[in-house]
Amino acid sequence: MYEFKTQVRVRYAEADPMNVVYYGNYAQYFEVGRVESLRSLGISYKELEEMGIMLPVVELNIKYLRSAKYDDLLTITTQIKQLPTDHRIIFDQEIHNEQGKLLTIGMVKLYFMDGNLGKRASMPTLMLEKLSSYFR
Amino acid sequence: MYEFKTQVRVRYAEADPMNVVYYGNYAQYFEVGRVESLRSLGISYKELEEMGIMLPVVELNIKYLRSAKYDDLLTITTQIKQLPTDHRIIFDQEIHNEQGKLLTIGMVKLYFMDGNLGKRASMPTLMLEKLSSYFR
Amino acid sequence: MYEFKTQVRVRYAEADPMNVVYYGNYAQYFEVGRVESLRSLGISYKELEEMGIMLPVVELNIKYLRSAKYDDLLTITTQIKQLPTDHRIIFDQEIHNEQGKLLTIGMVKLYFMDGNLGKRASMPTLMLEKLSSYFR
Amino acid sequence: MYEFKTQVRVRYAEADPMNVVYYGNYAQYFEVGRVESLRSLGISYKELEEMGIMLPVVELNIKYLRSAKYDDLLTITTQIKQLPTDHRIIFDQEIHNEQGKLLTIGMVKLYFMDGNLGKRASMPTLMLEKLSSYFR
Repeated sequence: MYEFKTQVRVRYAEADPMNVVYYGNYAQYFEVGRVESLRSLGISYKELEEMGIMLPVVELNIKYLRSAKYDDLLTITTQIKQLPTDHRIIFDQEIHNEQGKLLTIGMVKLYFMDGNLGKRASMPTLMLEKLSSYFR
Repeated sequence: MYEFKTQVRVRYAEADPMNVVYYGNYAQYFEVGRVESLRSLGISYKELEEMGIMLPVVELNIKYLRSAKYDDLLTITTQIKQLPTDHRIIFDQEIHNEQGKLLTIGMVKLYFMDGNLGKRASMPTLMLEKLSSYFR
Repeated sequence: MYEFKTQVRVRYAEADPMNVVYYGNYAQYFEVGRVESLRSLGISYKELEEMGIMLPVVELNIKYLRSAKYDDLLTITTQIKQLPTDHRIIFDQEIHNEQGKLLTIGMVKLYFMDGNLGKRASMPTLMLEKLSSYFR
Repeated sequence: MYEFKTQVRVRYAEADPMNVVYYGNYAQYFEVGRVESLRSLGISYKELEEMGIMLPVVELNIKYLRSAKYDDLLTITTQIKQLPTDHRIIFDQEIHNEQGKLLTIGMVKLYFMDGNLGKRASMPTLMLEKLSSYFR
């Protein structure tokens, strides 16, 4: 399993009239978690795109247990539990607040796509090499 | 079953570098669908809040089948398949484009909350009366 | 002078903990106003882009006089006061609420750009033809 | 003069189909710059709000010189050039990219408001004390 933690602070723009993070904005936090977890492996999502590899999200599931509030410093935990063997990759993600309370649980499924061909692709070799050491 | 359709046009701000709607922004479209479906029943979500009734989202599931693109005119279908009998209400939502293609399927579960007491509540009587005629 | 009015309803996601529209979100309302004002002239911003013409914003000035609130139905007034004679186009924009109160005054300056050459361009002939009848 | 620098990385959600940051999203970066500049002085904007002091934006001016792109690490410079003497405070803000290029220049004017009275207020004493040492 591969796991990485990163932090974001809740912006005023992201909180709604209930004074909590709008339910759709967790998708951005999860994105930050995935991008930074790849960066920690030496993989730049931006460079993947420049190589013609796209990673569209095909499924998102979120459970909201407790609210994140304006100015909270959140910890995003991102896990890859299974080494991808085809065009699919699944990220399991959790968000905790500074008191260590679990706020949100998410599952995000993405497809590797060849942007030029517009077809599903397998995980890039570079990424397989970086990730596989965590699955021995 | 209660069903309502409404439309939104994709804004430039909502599309990402892949030229498609960012995966987190569908939550806003679903929100528009729910709010307008309630309005069509004569229920204002804003007035519910002013009465102290909050409706936080506790679960969101989305499947992304096809992309919505910048300037697409989208039709949001919002269904309540079961009359709520406790503090939970489930909205089933779909988004189609102008060609009638199904783009996105969503399920959003919310809780009725008494904002003053900070406790779960049952569906307001007004809402029960409006909705129940669709479930006979 | 060319003038066009269109409407947007404030989404929950767009309101902040002060229960008013977040100051940055007016940029989206102004965008809707510009895009719909062009559409009313028979000009699709999407098609301009497909023709290789980009319209990046180079300057934005906003005065916030009164707050827009959640669920308010806003009227966006978009004016082109001068027929563009070079690569610049200026939109003057105002937002009023349902009570007719002026909430926000904006000025947005954009450049016509040739996306392929990466250079400033003059206004497309099609657009000049459509607009010029308003400036005789 | 008081000056503070902080950094944000551009999220995928914040970039538009031109592959650059959407013009309205700079308002969020400026907000992060202001909030972190206050925090560095020992002032929490969240605590100001809890004390009943609101800081609505009344004017925003932005010049866009160069584009910020997806995944760029941006430096936000926030300056208070004049010690507030009444209900107004002005922040001058700039955004540079990693190559040191100036991308965006902003001016944001806010009012101190007493949230309970709904009236303009002067700058809180705590904030005056923290800031005044920079203006001797």
